[in-house]
Amino acid sequence: MRLAVLGAGAVGRSVADLASEYGHTVTALADSASAVVDADGVDVDAALDRKRGDGTVGDADPADALAADYDALVEATPTTLGDAQPGFGHVRAALEADRHVVLANKGPVAERYDEVRALERESAGEVLFEATVAGAIPALSTIAGLGPERVTGARGVLNGTANFILTRMAAEGLSYEHVLSEAQDLGVAEADPTFDVEGTDAALKCAILANVLHGGGYSLADVAVEGITDLPPSALELAAEDGRTVRLVGEVTGGEARVGPRLVPENDTLAVSGTMNIVQLETEHAGRLNLSGRGAGGPETATAVLADVDRLS
Amino acid sequence: MRLAVLGAGAVGRSVADLASEYGHTVTALADSASAVVDADGVDVDAALDRKRGDGTVGDADPADALAADYDALVEATPTTLGDAQPGFGHVRAALEADRHVVLANKGPVAERYDEVRALERESAGEVLFEATVAGAIPALSTIAGLGPERVTGARGVLNGTANFILTRMAAEGLSYEHVLSEAQDLGVAEADPTFDVEGTDAALKCAILANVLHGGGYSLADVAVEGITDLPPSALELAAEDGRTVRLVGEVTGGEARVGPRLVPENDTLAVSGTMNIVQLETEHAGRLNLSGRGAGGPETATAVLADVDRLS
Repeated sequence: MRLAVLGAGAVGRSVADLASEYGHTVTALADSASAVVDADGVDVDAALDRKRGDGTVGDADPADALAADYDALVEATPTTLGDAQPGFGHVRAALEADRHVVLANKGPVAERYDEVRALERESAGEVLFEATVAGAIPALSTIAGLGPERVTGARGVLNGTANFILTRMAAEGLSYEHVLSEAQDLGVAEADPTFDVEGTDAALKCAILANVLHGGGYSLADVAVEGITDLPPSALELAAEDGRTVRLVGEVTGGEARVGPRLVPENDTLAVSGTMNIVQLETEHAGRLNLSGRGAGGPETATAVLADVDRLS
Repeated sequence: MRLAVLGAGAVGRSVADLASEYGHTVTALADSASAVVDADGVDVDAALDRKRGDGTVGDADPADALAADYDALVEATPTTLGDAQPGFGHVRAALEADRHVVLANKGPVAERYDEVRALERESAGEVLFEATVAGAIPALSTIAGLGPERVTGARGVLNGTANFILTRMAAEGLSYEHVLSEAQDLGVAEADPTFDVEGTDAALKCAILANVLHGGGYSLADVAVEGITDLPPSALELAAEDGRTVRLVGEVTGGEARVGPRLVPENDTLAVSGTMNIVQLETEHAGRLNLSGRGAGGPETATAVLADVDRLS
């Protein structure tokens, strides 16, 4: 397939880098300020070298990437809230041109799911978005395989940064602020960690899971969200005395979506460590399925993107 | 889809029972001695009532089921070794009639994978077999999504009976014989538990995983197998003193397939409890994925069968 990759952050770069190994051709690659377009295939190595150099991927305008020849648009620009722009506009443009869309950007399917599906119904293109929920973990494809109507609930640890912080706080008895600073030094937390530690990122994933399980109708505003910023070390100590720990758990059950710190047994399957994620699916006839792995990272998320591209082939 | 279901054990019965909920019609249902065939749809409830009564599902000959009108054959007769008959013959007949095949029976793809694939290449029908490896756990569909060439190894606890026995031996310090007898009372182990406790069942699953990962070439004879029948409680006690336990682990790595008792840390993801199964996939770009859940059971395995049927639709 010919891929137009929008976004040259960790995920977009990894998709571009791995595409040829998967038998695909990158015909356009864009970041927010520049693009490179070549119907015969972009020189990805050169574009990524240039990105590391002057910060641009080429001489073209970002808008040129959307006008390129491609079969599937890989939307990997940063997730935005509310109107989910510019990602949503990219999705619309691709579907109106009867092209497929593979999302790594959570915004369009977390905030404007019903509109995305309406555009898809009018298009010859399809929209897939495995990468938007827990990176490499095959959560959405497993739900699709089971049939969403036979998944009665989903629960999970959906944010690696928050989980790293909780794991370290529990293991070392350190304060939230101390561990956050350590996580920032390690590159596990961003300079502005708000999205992760206040639960927004996990809540977007819950909105997407709720949309998939219930056929739409959810956005971030429908998710009850509580983060981990106010969690005192004493809460973790109390939990530990009882053989428990605290995890930032996202849940979709009975039509309700919520994210918040929850007490879980220390040895529970849900109590994954460090930056690991887990998704638990409650099924109608097959009990509980646990899917865990790396929920973020460039190559990990790109793996989910490229699996979606293969499903479209 | 119209389904011909061969085998009326726990899995075949569950497939027949759930088929209508999934939008499918059972046009034939057979056990080893009888069958019921109706091109308009078998009365499944009546057939299963009759099975509970006199042990037959209908008045027809089992061979009539293969001659029925159907789109997909569900092969759920007992797994057999070596020539994998009569399952292999059923697969051949369906593919030669250009019909799809969904296997719950491990024999054909564990023992005669290359022949099954050769028949499939000549047929308009496809062969799927998610249910043959760890029941409801989406191991094969996850490998298909990643691309088998990007899965560098697979490892897992693939037999619930053996795992139940090891879990109980470790928790209670009981002997193998004692726990086996308890498992038989609970219906977790069969009267003849050989297949499970000597590792054969797990080894068949390893042969299937090896075939999928390496494009064929494996049968049971290619798997190095050691069971749990000779494991003394003292081995589990020694392991526990070191924070470890013993699991019957099946592995496919570097082209080698093997099954045997392995020491694993007590809190390790691999150390699932009771009758749970787990499959760990090592991926090229996305690290390790853990997939766990119920590896056996009628409705659980039927869920995997019916997910395969949906993939063919």
